[in-house]
Amino acid sequence: MSYTAPIKEMLFVMNELANLDAVSALPGCEDATRDTAEAVLEENAKFVSGVIEPLNHAGDKEPSYWHDGQVTTTKGFKEAFRQFADAGWQGLQHPQEFGGQGLPKLIGTPCVEMLHGANLSFALVALLSDGAIEALLTAGSDEQKATYLEPLVTGKWTGTMNLTEPQAGSDLAAVRTRAEPQGDGTYKVFGTKIFITYGEHDMTENIAHLVLARTPDAPPGVKGISLFIVPKFMVNADGSPGARNDVHCVSIEHKLGIKASPTAVLQFGDHGGAIGTLVGEENRGLEYMFIMMNAARFGVGMQGIGLAENAYQKAVAFARDRVQSRDVAGSSGPVPIIHHPDVRRMLMSMRAQTEAARALAYVGAGFHDIAHHHQDEETRAAHQAVYEYLVPVIKGWSTEMSENVARDGVQVHGGMGFIEETGAAQHYRDAKILTIYEGTTAIQANDLVGRKTLRDGGKVAKHLLAQARATATQLGELEGGDFAADFSSIRARLEQGAADLEAVVDFVLGNAKSDVKAVFAGSVPYLKLAGIVLGGWQMARAALIAQQKLSSGGGDAAFYQAKIATARFFADHFVAQSTAMRAAIVDGHAGVLALPEAMF
Amino acid sequence: MSYTAPIKEMLFVMNELANLDAVSALPGCEDATRDTAEAVLEENAKFVSGVIEPLNHAGDKEPSYWHDGQVTTTKGFKEAFRQFADAGWQGLQHPQEFGGQGLPKLIGTPCVEMLHGANLSFALVALLSDGAIEALLTAGSDEQKATYLEPLVTGKWTGTMNLTEPQAGSDLAAVRTRAEPQGDGTYKVFGTKIFITYGEHDMTENIAHLVLARTPDAPPGVKGISLFIVPKFMVNADGSPGARNDVHCVSIEHKLGIKASPTAVLQFGDHGGAIGTLVGEENRGLEYMFIMMNAARFGVGMQGIGLAENAYQKAVAFARDRVQSRDVAGSSGPVPIIHHPDVRRMLMSMRAQTEAARALAYVGAGFHDIAHHHQDEETRAAHQAVYEYLVPVIKGWSTEMSENVARDGVQVHGGMGFIEETGAAQHYRDAKILTIYEGTTAIQANDLVGRKTLRDGGKVAKHLLAQARATATQLGELEGGDFAADFSSIRARLEQGAADLEAVVDFVLGNAKSDVKAVFAGSVPYLKLAGIVLGGWQMARAALIAQQKLSSGGGDAAFYQAKIATARFFADHFVAQSTAMRAAIVDGHAGVLALPEAMF
Repeated sequence: MSYTAPIKEMLFVMNELANLDAVSALPGCEDATRDTAEAVLEENAKFVSGVIEPLNHAGDKEPSYWHDGQVTTTKGFKEAFRQFADAGWQGLQHPQEFGGQGLPKLIGTPCVEMLHGANLSFALVALLSDGAIEALLTAGSDEQKATYLEPLVTGKWTGTMNLTEPQAGSDLAAVRTRAEPQGDGTYKVFGTKIFITYGEHDMTENIAHLVLARTPDAPPGVKGISLFIVPKFMVNADGSPGARNDVHCVSIEHKLGIKASPTAVLQFGDHGGAIGTLVGEENRGLEYMFIMMNAARFGVGMQGIGLAENAYQKAVAFARDRVQSRDVAGSSGPVPIIHHPDVRRMLMSMRAQTEAARALAYVGAGFHDIAHHHQDEETRAAHQAVYEYLVPVIKGWSTEMSENVARDGVQVHGGMGFIEETGAAQHYRDAKILTIYEGTTAIQANDLVGRKTLRDGGKVAKHLLAQARATATQLGELEGGDFAADFSSIRARLEQGAADLEAVVDFVLGNAKSDVKAVFAGSVPYLKLAGIVLGGWQMARAALIAQQKLSSGGGDAAFYQAKIATARFFADHFVAQSTAMRAAIVDGHAGVLALPEAMF
Repeated sequence: MSYTAPIKEMLFVMNELANLDAVSALPGCEDATRDTAEAVLEENAKFVSGVIEPLNHAGDKEPSYWHDGQVTTTKGFKEAFRQFADAGWQGLQHPQEFGGQGLPKLIGTPCVEMLHGANLSFALVALLSDGAIEALLTAGSDEQKATYLEPLVTGKWTGTMNLTEPQAGSDLAAVRTRAEPQGDGTYKVFGTKIFITYGEHDMTENIAHLVLARTPDAPPGVKGISLFIVPKFMVNADGSPGARNDVHCVSIEHKLGIKASPTAVLQFGDHGGAIGTLVGEENRGLEYMFIMMNAARFGVGMQGIGLAENAYQKAVAFARDRVQSRDVAGSSGPVPIIHHPDVRRMLMSMRAQTEAARALAYVGAGFHDIAHHHQDEETRAAHQAVYEYLVPVIKGWSTEMSENVARDGVQVHGGMGFIEETGAAQHYRDAKILTIYEGTTAIQANDLVGRKTLRDGGKVAKHLLAQARATATQLGELEGGDFAADFSSIRARLEQGAADLEAVVDFVLGNAKSDVKAVFAGSVPYLKLAGIVLGGWQMARAALIAQQKLSSGGGDAAFYQAKIATARFFADHFVAQSTAMRAAIVDGHAGVLALPEAMF
């Protein structure tokens, strides 16, 4: 069974929930019509199913390996990346002036989802290049842009993000890598970076490393970190790769998952110093890095959604195929296990979570596009604020749910799921990194509490809640007809969910000064609650639209009926958890913090 | 960091919650005093930490392997099993007349937990032997007992359970392996069995395979399955292994976890027929197999608890050691991450779930002992009924929670958790089999709904609920003092949890005839709800006892305070989920079953 991109579903979300029409009405986005979107998605789907997905299990069985400073990637990766780049997929969302296609994020997002859904390990190299491009577009000098952007956008080279050091993981204040100015505009970089995704590989002729380091007089902590670009090979005047730079891969990690993606330990400057140039201004490195990190965080959210979709499809295929036991309501013989209620429950759970997370993420992408392209500054700012609130939720919640979905995917397979040949186990292993890298779920939750809730006094959160409540009201006004029970349940859960999320936002606002530990004891539950309520809101919107389509008799009735059923499932099985999550936050902090450290 | 058995905690649960004194008052259990228990646990803890745990990571890195029909187990396993057997650990719970020590299950259970906590792959061989011993004790002929029991109980040989075939996993009605009577009291067995744990290995001189097969005139389905014992080597008159029997291992599986435990495909009878003898009566095989399976299911629950304890200890050690970021309430520099509220939340979650599941399982073991040894038949029957209700909950819920705990264990480690060298990832991989083998969680839930709830009209379930409510009442009567807020929360959650569980039991009873699919759509949530409420009840009992100990000024105050804090955490973070689970069951079945199959 190979992965098939859910194009119908993706287009429904783009058109009906994320308002692609509003995006294509933006200046500079005129080409992003429904027709373009459909054509791009279909082409991309064909490519990832034909070229990228077939390498997924192979990469797990025969991972990239290190030998004597070189990394040889899984057989087929190099050629596939060439095809990927040549077809223009790396440049999809990047500016046309550097060889990209300049399409909005709302169209790029489903393509990102497909690529990751097909092959997480492969897709990572593109994700990291996207981040490097973003950073250079934001803060690079004209010369840096001229040197690096076109090769990165066209996939001639790839990019990396070098943040982590052995003592500096979540805590970038502890970065020690140093950069010494040479007086000629260049710096010599010295230090060790770990966990560098595609930090070394054989897929392109050069690699552009973006590196956090300290200049000699930098202040301590996060305010003394600068960003440098350090190429693997120095770049000649004509743009071709020149002398080998002093950055070397000394090993790669033996990991639980995403095995085809080489995770490098990079030594900078062991042989005299790695030559780099400063990106933007000194000591503002973290700020720039956050720009690429926010793009990457959204991308990791999409990894979760893509992986969940693939795991779901595999489980459905197995459940249709595997015949075992009679139907609990009676049958003449054993039936495919998709008939068994608990298998059905797991499949619905996988499906509903994936759809809810996808809807929220695409809506976020639409907000991003308006924030970047709208003519009105106030509109841009308002949309940017919502987008920024959503990023940690999209990253944190979509990846947490992808772990659950991958787990259920194994479970649907029963004993076969535990056998590596089946492929379900690979999803389970691969998924585990998603809640860790680009900031663990706790780091996302800190961001949600600190920068996204406290800083604006909960304004954006309450704005979103008001909209969710408006959807609930609409559900109440509707003549539900065949779906009356569904809408009544969806509405009640959403109203309760909104009340619970509001209570939690008020708890965060009310206690941040007086009892900051109590607030952060509930930060991850708050993030998950936000995901469930806002995802549930999108599912409720989808159900409303589906009902309208059904009333007007247009389109694919089975699709719309399924959408309502899935929204109902999500409401009863997920949004219904809101009150317990509120309890875990508002009352549960006492239990989190009561135990003296010595008693653990 | 190596695993340290939590002996103080284990003894507290045995003495205070599971009533070891009542067990040692039973006829035949006079030796099972508190002192004996403590001595046995300490000896066992020393053994597993010194001999068994050091082989755990090694077995993952260098799994058992197959070559030309032979399986070579991980280096050190054979010697360790010799020591394990010679020290009498295999025979701990088995009758003295066959070389065992005849100790009750309540003392055996913590030893089982330790062994699995230290090394799941190794411990499996003992678990399977336990099952084979149980089946022979129940249904074996005098000759079979004389031939097999002493070698199995003393660990000279090991035992296996051969149920699964490619087309017969959860559905044993589909078993095709056949057994042809030879007229001399023996049978020739032909067929393929898969997923046979330790189906072949080099650790002992013989293996006794217990095999489900059909005799020529057997009725179809589950009523035509008989149980056979088929030794790897025929047994000579003097008990020594003789000619090689026609059962051969044709391959072992490449698995997600428990890699050191060889999972064999066994061919019976490819070279003329594997010689076996019938165990018990013809066509009653499934009944006997259920006896060993129930013992094994309880054992798998203990695997979950042992693994969770180990994962928790590893996470605590890492969290104390790893220094990263400042305290959110302010600190002069970075602090060990155990200070961070979200790390604390994860550790408490791991700890509380493990303690609750342990308490419930040990209480179950105590019921088992009374059911087997009490002089009064009615008392025996009543305790057996409760034990049987608890077995699917102990198996299903403890293993589901162990997946969550292992997952959090990786998460606490951050990026290091994803690197295999750290060991947290192994727990994550190993845990995934526990909700699958010996009956998936769905199979446990079917058992809970069908045999354990519908059959007695919910009698046992309601009896347990009445006891949980009595505990809640006791909490209300208590002068809480320093712990007033804790007890108030524990009490409220437990009362609500009992109400929700009762509503679900009534839903199951009320709808099984009219809408059986709706009932089974909520079977796994019902199982988890039962686990959370009954586990929460045990934690509430523990908190009450801790408070009494503190009031009377006896013992380890810090231990009792921690017990109350952990009970409070479990109430607010887990028992508080009961209402959402009730909703998922009572309302949520509509969403589970709404989608037409074609729409998945």
